[in-house]
Amino acid sequence: MDTSVSFSDIQSAATRLSGVAVRTPVITSRQLDAVAGASVYLKAESFQRTGSFKFRGAYNALSQLREEGAKGVLTYSSGNHAQALSRAGQLLGLPVHVIMPEQAPAIKRAATEAYGATVELYDATTVSREALAAERSAALGLPIIPPYDHPQVIAGQGTAAMELFEEVGTLDTLLVCCGGGGLLSGSVLSARALSPACRVIGVEPEAGDDATRSFRTGVLQRVQNPDTIADGARTPYLGAQTFPIVLNHVDDMVTVSDDALVEAMQFAFERLKLVIEPTGVLGLAALLAGAVDTSTGSRVGVIVSGGNVDRATAAQLLAR
Amino acid sequence: MDTSVSFSDIQSAATRLSGVAVRTPVITSRQLDAVAGASVYLKAESFQRTGSFKFRGAYNALSQLREEGAKGVLTYSSGNHAQALSRAGQLLGLPVHVIMPEQAPAIKRAATEAYGATVELYDATTVSREALAAERSAALGLPIIPPYDHPQVIAGQGTAAMELFEEVGTLDTLLVCCGGGGLLSGSVLSARALSPACRVIGVEPEAGDDATRSFRTGVLQRVQNPDTIADGARTPYLGAQTFPIVLNHVDDMVTVSDDALVEAMQFAFERLKLVIEPTGVLGLAALLAGAVDTSTGSRVGVIVSGGNVDRATAAQLLAR
Repeated sequence: MDTSVSFSDIQSAATRLSGVAVRTPVITSRQLDAVAGASVYLKAESFQRTGSFKFRGAYNALSQLREEGAKGVLTYSSGNHAQALSRAGQLLGLPVHVIMPEQAPAIKRAATEAYGATVELYDATTVSREALAAERSAALGLPIIPPYDHPQVIAGQGTAAMELFEEVGTLDTLLVCCGGGGLLSGSVLSARALSPACRVIGVEPEAGDDATRSFRTGVLQRVQNPDTIADGARTPYLGAQTFPIVLNHVDDMVTVSDDALVEAMQFAFERLKLVIEPTGVLGLAALLAGAVDTSTGSRVGVIVSGGNVDRATAAQLLAR
Repeated sequence: MDTSVSFSDIQSAATRLSGVAVRTPVITSRQLDAVAGASVYLKAESFQRTGSFKFRGAYNALSQLREEGAKGVLTYSSGNHAQALSRAGQLLGLPVHVIMPEQAPAIKRAATEAYGATVELYDATTVSREALAAERSAALGLPIIPPYDHPQVIAGQGTAAMELFEEVGTLDTLLVCCGGGGLLSGSVLSARALSPACRVIGVEPEAGDDATRSFRTGVLQRVQNPDTIADGARTPYLGAQTFPIVLNHVDDMVTVSDDALVEAMQFAFERLKLVIEPTGVLGLAALLAGAVDTSTGSRVGVIVSGGNVDRATAAQLLAR
């Protein structure tokens, strides 16, 4: 294996997460199958603790830090990773310090604080979060668990796809949303072990297509605050850990428009009865928009990454 | 057994439905457990074919009619049963004629027609649907499968609770929404066989409390076009089949306000990531509103009956 994460790390993560993380259901729909011309299996991480797959990686990494004697942890995130790590810290009895841009919605800060974390605000227009995190980590004596670029985070995220393959068997295609590439990296490593012939395709929003361009060119590309409703995929670039895994193992990368994301959210709501956040619907949107070639009768897995969309936003998107 | 339906009928229904109906997932949530002070198991029939539990009873009854040589079938329904029977007819190759009130939600009429059924509209404020159905049945030479008051329909509906008990074991309390009592009757018969000590509680909207009053008085009570968003529970009275089952086997009946239904739908959306229709959320609303006494640490099942709410209505309810 040419990566810092192996399938055995994912198996170890699964053991650590057993009885702690939710073994989320696989949702099927004949209506969706008819529209897609394929048998589709949706791994619904919207039902995961804290509402997204992020809990898997956060808990896996933090439980190991705890075994190593850490007295707390620090991270930088304005969204699902902050909530997931805060909840993991609450469960493991470790304080969590979160550096969050003052531009982040108050609701996200409140959700993170509700899990007992300490939130420190900074001005995202003038300060680099990585630099600030490094400085605060040294000052507070707290190790960092970043949102995606970390072997134990990647290993934890891989357990979702692992469970999917265990439940439904091998697949022809697996669609995974891509922000910083943690979920995509973990998923493709599980696929290579459990369903080697499966085509693994990463999906990004059109405006945040850095990973797609990085994949095509073999050189790390960036985006700056991309304008997309998929807030979990506004990450500026793949990480040092995730880029090589994506480049070496993923079969293809595609992008979808924000309009396609809204349509897929509406389809999920009305037909599938699932609440999926804009980022979580990337894979489904690629399928519905015909952005991936799925032969009739093929077996397609989709990782639905999360369901954290607030009511007011959802009401607006549903009313469109 | 003092009823026309026995648990062996439910077991036979399960055999007929195997591989046809969805074995719907049981959803759990630690947030819900914390709020409810109990371990809660949601049987999510929103993921059933046609979006509600109604497919179970409709398919079970229609497949037996087909074996007996029927050339088609007629029903009267405000929505979910119509869709379910139409889909069953499509699968079994039998034409379905549906008498539907003009007042039914547009999404439900469209879905029924999309399954190939013939829809005949009538004015529910002036015409008795049973009388009209009897007349049309005779004129068209089609037998009737009513929405709830039919042994094979009740037996089919009982398979949802049966699956729940098979998956999670015995329960202390089971909450089931009640319109005409088909789901409640089937559920209580499964409970008596698989979890005899389980308290089975039916839940109605306050404005449509006929079954609750019938249960308390032992005499069949009626409501007339009750003003509630729980459109599936606007049924005027329990049936000749369902009333005795409810009276003899159900432990209690409670009601909840429409405001509690809206709050429960919002809770389901934001916390549980589930799309549940107003009628489907009755059991959850009773739990969240404290309408049922659940001791801390007890095990509570809730049958979530369906998820067929149109986007526009949902957007309004979510924005409240």
